[in-house]
Amino acid sequence: MFQPRSIAVVGILAMVQMYVSELVVKGFEGEIYPILRNQTELMGLKCYPSINNIPGSVDYVIVCIGAKGTPQLLKDCLLKNVKVCHIFSSGFSETNTPEGKRLENEIVKIARDGNVRILGPNCLGIYNPANGMSIADGLANESGCLGVISQSGGNTTYLSRVAPMRGMGISKAVSYGNAADIDESDLLEYFTEDSKTKIICAYIEGIKNGKRFKETLKKAARAKPTIVIKGGISEAGMATAASHTGSIASSVQAWTSLIRQVGAISVDNFDEAIDLALLFKYMKPLKGRKACVIGTGGGASVLISDDLYRTGLSIPRLPPEIKNKLENLMPSAGFIYTNPIDTQAYFTTDDGLHKTVKILNEWDGIDILIFHTAYEVIGSNNLKWSGFMKKTIETAKAADKPKAIVLHYVFSPDIYQEFFSDLRESCKNGLPTFLSMESFGKAANKFIGYHKKRDEKV
Amino acid sequence: MFQPRSIAVVGILAMVQMYVSELVVKGFEGEIYPILRNQTELMGLKCYPSINNIPGSVDYVIVCIGAKGTPQLLKDCLLKNVKVCHIFSSGFSETNTPEGKRLENEIVKIARDGNVRILGPNCLGIYNPANGMSIADGLANESGCLGVISQSGGNTTYLSRVAPMRGMGISKAVSYGNAADIDESDLLEYFTEDSKTKIICAYIEGIKNGKRFKETLKKAARAKPTIVIKGGISEAGMATAASHTGSIASSVQAWTSLIRQVGAISVDNFDEAIDLALLFKYMKPLKGRKACVIGTGGGASVLISDDLYRTGLSIPRLPPEIKNKLENLMPSAGFIYTNPIDTQAYFTTDDGLHKTVKILNEWDGIDILIFHTAYEVIGSNNLKWSGFMKKTIETAKAADKPKAIVLHYVFSPDIYQEFFSDLRESCKNGLPTFLSMESFGKAANKFIGYHKKRDEKV
Repeated sequence: MFQPRSIAVVGILAMVQMYVSELVVKGFEGEIYPILRNQTELMGLKCYPSINNIPGSVDYVIVCIGAKGTPQLLKDCLLKNVKVCHIFSSGFSETNTPEGKRLENEIVKIARDGNVRILGPNCLGIYNPANGMSIADGLANESGCLGVISQSGGNTTYLSRVAPMRGMGISKAVSYGNAADIDESDLLEYFTEDSKTKIICAYIEGIKNGKRFKETLKKAARAKPTIVIKGGISEAGMATAASHTGSIASSVQAWTSLIRQVGAISVDNFDEAIDLALLFKYMKPLKGRKACVIGTGGGASVLISDDLYRTGLSIPRLPPEIKNKLENLMPSAGFIYTNPIDTQAYFTTDDGLHKTVKILNEWDGIDILIFHTAYEVIGSNNLKWSGFMKKTIETAKAADKPKAIVLHYVFSPDIYQEFFSDLRESCKNGLPTFLSMESFGKAANKFIGYHKKRDEKV
Repeated sequence: MFQPRSIAVVGILAMVQMYVSELVVKGFEGEIYPILRNQTELMGLKCYPSINNIPGSVDYVIVCIGAKGTPQLLKDCLLKNVKVCHIFSSGFSETNTPEGKRLENEIVKIARDGNVRILGPNCLGIYNPANGMSIADGLANESGCLGVISQSGGNTTYLSRVAPMRGMGISKAVSYGNAADIDESDLLEYFTEDSKTKIICAYIEGIKNGKRFKETLKKAARAKPTIVIKGGISEAGMATAASHTGSIASSVQAWTSLIRQVGAISVDNFDEAIDLALLFKYMKPLKGRKACVIGTGGGASVLISDDLYRTGLSIPRLPPEIKNKLENLMPSAGFIYTNPIDTQAYFTTDDGLHKTVKILNEWDGIDILIFHTAYEVIGSNNLKWSGFMKKTIETAKAADKPKAIVLHYVFSPDIYQEFFSDLRESCKNGLPTFLSMESFGKAANKFIGYHKKRDEKV
């Protein structure tokens, strides 16, 4: 399914164009067959009036025709020995109509009686940066180590766009919709085995087979950090999920206890999933919850302390010997030599920051160093002339304690551009980078909890 | 203090330049006197070697000299009948040194024995868009109705930059630092009376006189919605606050109960303060917690439901008659006619959205309409050709129920530019606009609680 040698796309022109142009742009190496009745060519590719007319073999078909036509199309695919039909079309069980449910049952029966698997219906399909399969424009060409299983196309698109920009490339992402045939358990099993995938993220609205799901999730979580977002924990969310992918309700309690039992990690949304995945990718297990924070801005430092406190991290006081060393390094007016450290070292000598962090790096009372940049507070000019981010990256890399970067207080468009280019630079240098102290704290708290639980088991 | 006829700025060149250039750029109408010994002119203004050499009267002096020189400078100011000295300089009680504390006591004594008031020390001072007083570059020239009292300069800068961009202009903002003389109670009293200020936001690290503060906060909260951010609720935060502005610890419990008793509203940070202020400015009191959400994206809709549920809002199911009306309006494949409504009406006929919302606006089972745009999910092209934001604004304005706009799923720089211009447009049209469903829900929950409490008292 993830490595087809040939792909046919059939359906309305706009959708065929979308999928075919993505395959072309991303450089899919196999054969691409657009199926269009009223057209002989699309983007330099020969079009065919139907699956049957394609000369070669077809491994994978993307189906964008009306739901009613799908049973016949599936039969055509069987004759052509197609391996997987990705049904983009909606109009099945998610409509909650007898006709929609009947149609879904019918296509599943055809698929199982024959020898074809269905992905979907009602889904965007597969994003595989390594071979050019894609679900939307603007997705990265570079592969990463995050495997994504998601019952929502829009959410898969969001994650696939944003995660690579945050230094968290995707190995493969699958939007699997109604899960009429290939379901969350099949996909989890795949990602558990897939050597390119080091971390799994699953967005699930409903599960098809509870017992099997529990087993596969347990195996996945044993093999790799497995992050789960359950869509539809509220009544309204569940009702929406039912109409979105035909998912059936399960209680929040049952779900939470399942996740905990199997050793997976639950988060509330995709941004939290990215935060947590970054820690798994870039950070060694933390020994404890004690953080030292370095940056500029007194009021920001106060609020940062409170944010971290709320998420369960602690910020120990500087012991006198560390405080003395820091004070000997630089005069104290305008500086705050408590933890968080509000340092002007960024704006003084070239190696001021380096010397400051060297002292903190040797302090054995902390488990992690956090470098933060408060953009709107410091101001664009100060950030530029001081080489703020360059100093941060160099100093952070030189420290051997676990470290994280927080880039926050960002709002106006000019500052956003600057923040974004700094973010890229930080990610490129292998530093896990977060967008608020709160989001870092939440992720770190779960990261620590995960390792603690595993240590206890060992 | 907020309406001086003349301002002198004294101290190191860089700071004198900063304050003077801001006054010039913002068009301060009174006299501006740079005090610089080694210079005769700055930005076309005559420089003076000292306060005493200024020919006319001086109402307000911005002091950026070393802490040690401030007692003598204050004496000079007394001779010149200066009304207010804003002491930017640090090096006082916040250093927690005997010398710093002694200096602070000394300047307060000089001020009180004479007839001058001190703002600070260790603060950025006043931003008053109406007369050109400013604390940083890039702040809006237009006044608004939010009065800001803040013990942190950086945080005041952040709020003063960001709030106007979100449709929440500032009446006046004061960064008041150590509060050695003019304190939070004085400032609260001023903003309680100030007719331009309709909503008050206070960032406080420590209070000088608990009893008086309680009384003034109570009066403020009775007169106007009063939003309070307490910096330093954690041990580390409190320690930082002590070093930042010399503030003394008070327990979280005492603080929380004080805020509740007097009818003020507590939030955790400046973004939450802006969210809440937007509701006070743009929205009439809500009758209840029942929301109807309109937008595009199935998976986003599921997560939105869960987000709102977590914040205490409810999303009632569509009753059959509403559902029928919506289904008659448009075919259902790919749509989700539950609440949240995942509608394709944005992409079909020109008045599809308008008709959809008209039906929902007449539904008496809901208290508020929420329009959301999930940028990365919908994609730049779809947003553009459909005129997504234009339709949203027009339709939202036409509905007479309370309404809010949520612009979210924003990340890549191109999308950010688009989001930002939409945000501006939405604010310009008087629509309260939020950056995530969670942040809207949190603010709405507090907004509803505030009105409920006031209703109970009446």
